[in-house]
Amino acid sequence: MHAHLTPQDVTTMFLALAALLGGAKLAGELVRKLDQPAVLGEIMAGIALGPTVLGSLAPGVYRTVFPDTGALSIVMDAVATIGVVLFLLTAGIEVDLTNVFRQGRSALLVSSFGVLFPFALGFAAAGLFPQFLGAEPGSDRLIFASFLGTALSISALPVIAKILMDLNLLRSDVGTVVLSSAMFDDLVGWILFSLVLALMNTGSHSLGSIKHTIVLTLLFVILVLTLGRWFVDKAIPQIQAHATWPGGVLGFIFTLTLASAAYTEYAGIHAVFGAFIMGIAIGESRHLRERTREHIHEVVTNVFAPLFFASIGLRTNFAANFSLGVTATVLAVACLGKVLGAGWGARLGGMDRRTSLAVGMGMNARGAMEIILGLLALQYGLIRERMFVALVVMALVTSLVSGPAIYYLLQRRRVFNLRDTLSNKLFRQNLSARTKLEALRELCDLAASSVGNSGERFFWKVQGRELIVGSGLQNGVAVPHARVNGLEKPLVAVGMSEEGIDFDTRDGQAARIVILILTGDTQSQVDLLADVEHLFSLQETVDQALNSRSFVEFMAAVNAPVK
Amino acid sequence: MHAHLTPQDVTTMFLALAALLGGAKLAGELVRKLDQPAVLGEIMAGIALGPTVLGSLAPGVYRTVFPDTGALSIVMDAVATIGVVLFLLTAGIEVDLTNVFRQGRSALLVSSFGVLFPFALGFAAAGLFPQFLGAEPGSDRLIFASFLGTALSISALPVIAKILMDLNLLRSDVGTVVLSSAMFDDLVGWILFSLVLALMNTGSHSLGSIKHTIVLTLLFVILVLTLGRWFVDKAIPQIQAHATWPGGVLGFIFTLTLASAAYTEYAGIHAVFGAFIMGIAIGESRHLRERTREHIHEVVTNVFAPLFFASIGLRTNFAANFSLGVTATVLAVACLGKVLGAGWGARLGGMDRRTSLAVGMGMNARGAMEIILGLLALQYGLIRERMFVALVVMALVTSLVSGPAIYYLLQRRRVFNLRDTLSNKLFRQNLSARTKLEALRELCDLAASSVGNSGERFFWKVQGRELIVGSGLQNGVAVPHARVNGLEKPLVAVGMSEEGIDFDTRDGQAARIVILILTGDTQSQVDLLADVEHLFSLQETVDQALNSRSFVEFMAAVNAPVK
Repeated sequence: MHAHLTPQDVTTMFLALAALLGGAKLAGELVRKLDQPAVLGEIMAGIALGPTVLGSLAPGVYRTVFPDTGALSIVMDAVATIGVVLFLLTAGIEVDLTNVFRQGRSALLVSSFGVLFPFALGFAAAGLFPQFLGAEPGSDRLIFASFLGTALSISALPVIAKILMDLNLLRSDVGTVVLSSAMFDDLVGWILFSLVLALMNTGSHSLGSIKHTIVLTLLFVILVLTLGRWFVDKAIPQIQAHATWPGGVLGFIFTLTLASAAYTEYAGIHAVFGAFIMGIAIGESRHLRERTREHIHEVVTNVFAPLFFASIGLRTNFAANFSLGVTATVLAVACLGKVLGAGWGARLGGMDRRTSLAVGMGMNARGAMEIILGLLALQYGLIRERMFVALVVMALVTSLVSGPAIYYLLQRRRVFNLRDTLSNKLFRQNLSARTKLEALRELCDLAASSVGNSGERFFWKVQGRELIVGSGLQNGVAVPHARVNGLEKPLVAVGMSEEGIDFDTRDGQAARIVILILTGDTQSQVDLLADVEHLFSLQETVDQALNSRSFVEFMAAVNAPVK
Repeated sequence: MHAHLTPQDVTTMFLALAALLGGAKLAGELVRKLDQPAVLGEIMAGIALGPTVLGSLAPGVYRTVFPDTGALSIVMDAVATIGVVLFLLTAGIEVDLTNVFRQGRSALLVSSFGVLFPFALGFAAAGLFPQFLGAEPGSDRLIFASFLGTALSISALPVIAKILMDLNLLRSDVGTVVLSSAMFDDLVGWILFSLVLALMNTGSHSLGSIKHTIVLTLLFVILVLTLGRWFVDKAIPQIQAHATWPGGVLGFIFTLTLASAAYTEYAGIHAVFGAFIMGIAIGESRHLRERTREHIHEVVTNVFAPLFFASIGLRTNFAANFSLGVTATVLAVACLGKVLGAGWGARLGGMDRRTSLAVGMGMNARGAMEIILGLLALQYGLIRERMFVALVVMALVTSLVSGPAIYYLLQRRRVFNLRDTLSNKLFRQNLSARTKLEALRELCDLAASSVGNSGERFFWKVQGRELIVGSGLQNGVAVPHARVNGLEKPLVAVGMSEEGIDFDTRDGQAARIVILILTGDTQSQVDLLADVEHLFSLQETVDQALNSRSFVEFMAAVNAPVK
C-alpha cells in the first residue's frame, strides 16, 4: 500500500500552489508594467509569501500553508523541481543551434573568462577575509575559498533565459551568445560544484565520481545533439503520421524531457541540464509544428515557471539573516568578476564595447544554482546564514539589474504601440458623426478635451493632412493623423460607428473604426500607424474590435489578438 | 530550512514520471487504434508498470523506481492528484451549462435512479454474504453493507469525461446527460462517502461534519455557478486588455482552479470536484478564447491526465489479490444496479430505449473514487485485499465496456477518412505521368497490384466517371474516383507530380496531388471525397503535403493538419 497525502495535506497543497501561482502572476504582471522582466516579480512574490514577510507578519498562517518539514515540504520541492525542468525544456526549444555554433568562439571566450574572473576574485576574497564573510569558525580555508569562487562564477541559466525571453532577445545575437555561454558556464559550474562537494568530503563524492560525472555529461551532450537530434527529427513525422495530434507529439516530447532530466541528475549534474539539452535537440527538428511549440511554451512559462521562481523566495528569511557588509562585499566581488570577465571575453570575441558590456551584464544574472549550492554548504556546516542570504540577495540584485542594463546598453528604442496609448477617456463607442469631417471634429474635440487644448487646432492639422494622404485603410478601419508641435506624448482617440463613415478606404468599405493619432514627433507617428495597420490587417481582430461592447473589450481585442 | 529531495530522489522521480507518461501514451495510442478510449490503455500501462506485472517480474527494479514508502511515494501521490484536478478542469471547461440545464430533468432522474439501484443491490448483497464478499471478520455488518452500496453507486466523473471526450460525444445530448448525471452522482457519492467514513468511526468525521460538508459544498456550487461565473466573465476581458496574453488568462484560470480544489478538499469533498465546478464557470465565459482553451486542453489531457490514470495501476497487485468469485459478484451487482437504474431514469426522462441503455452504459463506468474509497476501507480494516481488487477490476471492466457499448448502441456509423485508408504501398512520390489519362492509368495499376486485380478494369471505371464529373478540386488537388463492385474496403492511391498535370481543376491550377479513390459502396466514397475536400481546402495543408519527402511526411500532413 502506498504512502498517501491526507485530505488536510491535499487542501494545504492546493492552497499553497494557488497562493504561489496567483501571487507570482500578479507580481509578474506588475513588474512588467515597469519594463522589468516578469521573473523578478515572481521571485519577489515568493519572498512576500515566504518566511521573510508572511512568516514575520503571520507566522501561524505561514507555517500552516508552507510547512517547513513533512510531506508538503517535499511536495513543494518536487513541484518546483518539475517546474524548473519544464521551463528549461522550453528555453532549450527556443535555442537555435546553428546560431549557437556561429557564435561558438564568442560564447567560449565569454564563458571561460566569465567563470575564471569571478572565481579568482571570490577565491581571493574568501581566502583573505574568511571570518568576515561568514565562514563557520574552524572550517577549512581552502574549501571555503573554493566554495565562494564557485558560487560567484555560476550564471543562472533559467533566470537568464527568462530575462532574455521577457526582453524578446532570446533569438538575437547577443541573446544567443549569452545563453550559449550560460550553458557552458552551467556545465563548468556543476563540475566545480562536484569538486567543492568532494572537498567538503561528504563521502558521496570523490574525484572518481567527478570524472564519472564529466564523462557521463559530455557523452550525453554529444549523443543528444547528434544522434538524439537525428532521432527526434525522424520520430516526429512518424508520430504525426500515426498517432493522435498533437497528443502524440506532446507525450513524446515530455517523456524524452523527463527521461533526460533523470539521466543528468543521475550523472551528477542537475536535472534541468538534461531537459535543456533535450529541448535544444527537439527545437531543432524542422517537423516540430509551431502549434505544438506554442502549447508547451504557454502553459510552461505561465504556470510552471512562475511556481518555481516563486518557490525560491520560500527558502529562507531574508530580513533576519541579512548582513549589509557581507552582502555588499559578495555583490561587489560577484559583479566585478562576472561583468569584467564575461565582458572582456565578448570584446576578445569581436564585439563592440557597448555590446560586450551588455553581454557581461546578461551573464551577471544569478539564480537558483547559487542558492542550491549555498543551501548545501549551510547544511554541511561550511557557511553561516548571513553568507547564504548574501548569496541569494546577490542573485536577486544581479538579476534585477541585468534586464534594464541590457535594455539601456543595447539602446532598444521604446517603440510606441497602440495598446499603451489607448485610454478609456479617449474612447467613444458610438460616434454621432455621419460624415468624415464630422468624425474628425468629434474625435479632435475628444482628444483636445483631455489635454486642455483647442479641438479646432487639431482638426485643421488633421484635415490638412487628410487632403494630402487619405487615411482609410482596409477592413473598415481609418487612421486620421497629424503631427502637432508641443505634444509631449501621443494622443490616440478611438471612435466606432455602427453604420460606417465614408473614409475612402482602400477596399471601399465604410470605416467603422476610426483611430485618430496625434503625435509631437514623426517617429512615434510612424510606430503607431504601423502598429494599427499590422493589428487590423486581420479580419478577426477587426471583428473582435467591432463586437466589443466596452473600452475593456476593445483593449482586449487589441492586446490579445486572435491569431 | 526546508525538507529536500535528495539527488537520488530527483533522479528516481523523473525516471518514474518518464516511465509512467511514456507507457501511458504508448498504450493509449495503441488502444485507440482498436477504437477503445485511450484512458483504458493508460490505466493498463500503470498496471504493467505496477506491482502486478513489473513488481512480479523484476521486483528490484519496481521497488527502486516506484518505492512504496517515503518521499517519492508522497510525490507520486501529489503528482497524480494535481494531474486529476487539472484534468477535471478541462472536463469542466468542456461542459455546456445551458445544455446541462436543458437536460436537467433527465440528468436528475438518471443520477438518482443510478445511485439508488446499485446502492440498494450492493447493500443487500453485502448484508447477505459479508464473509464471502471479503468483509474483515468482526467488522460491523451495517457499515460493510453501506460501504459496498456506496462503492457500487459512485460513477467515475474523470473516466466518464475521458470516454466521452475520446468518443467525441462530450457536447452531444447523451454526453451532456451522462456527464451532468455523473456530476450529481459524484456529489451524492461524496456525501454518502462521508457518511460511511463517519460510520467507520474514524474520529475525523461525525454527523455534524457531514452537515458541514453538505452546506459548504452546496454553497460553493451555487456561488461559483452564479457569482463566480459572472466574475470570471467580467475578469477575463479585463485581463486580456491589461495583462500579457495568453499568460495572464492562463495564470488566472489555473490559480482559480487550484484555489477551488483546495476549498472543496477542505469542505470534505475531493479536490477534483472544485476544479470541475470552477472549470464549468470558466468555460461559460464567452470571452474565453478558443486558443486559450486549446493550450490548457492539449497539455492537460496529453500529459497530466495520462500520469494520473497510469498511477492508478501502481496502487496494488492485481494478480495476487484476485478472487474470481468476489470479483464476478461485485461486477454483476454493480452493472445490474447501475445500468438498470440509470437506464430506467433515462427512460423516464423521455429517451428511447436504445439511448437509455447507452446512458446506463455510460454511467456504468467507474474509476478512481471507488478505488480511493476501497483504499480507505482497507486501511480502516473494513475490507480485505480481495474485495479491494474486485472493486478495481470492476472499475476497469465497466470502463472497458462502456465505450464500445455506447458506440454500438448509438450506432455511430464508422466514417471513412483519408488517413485510415492511406498506405505506403499505394503512394507514389513522383508520378511519371504527364497527362491526365497517363496519371489515371498509373494510379489504377498501382491500386490494382495491391489487390491482385486488373488495372484495366479500374481505369475504365474511373475514366468513365471522369467524363461525367471532372475530379479537379482547387489548390492543385484532383480526386479521380469510381465505384467498383466487389471491393471490400476502399482503395486509395496517391500520386504527386512536381510539374503538375492538367486535371481541369476549379481554379485552373495544374494538379500536383492526385488521389485516386476506389470504393465498393457509395457511402464510403462520399465520406472519403468529403474528407479530401475538407483537408485540402486549406492552402497550408496542400503546401505541407507537397513539401513532404516521404509517405510518412505525407501522412503527417494529412493526420496533423496545420490549423
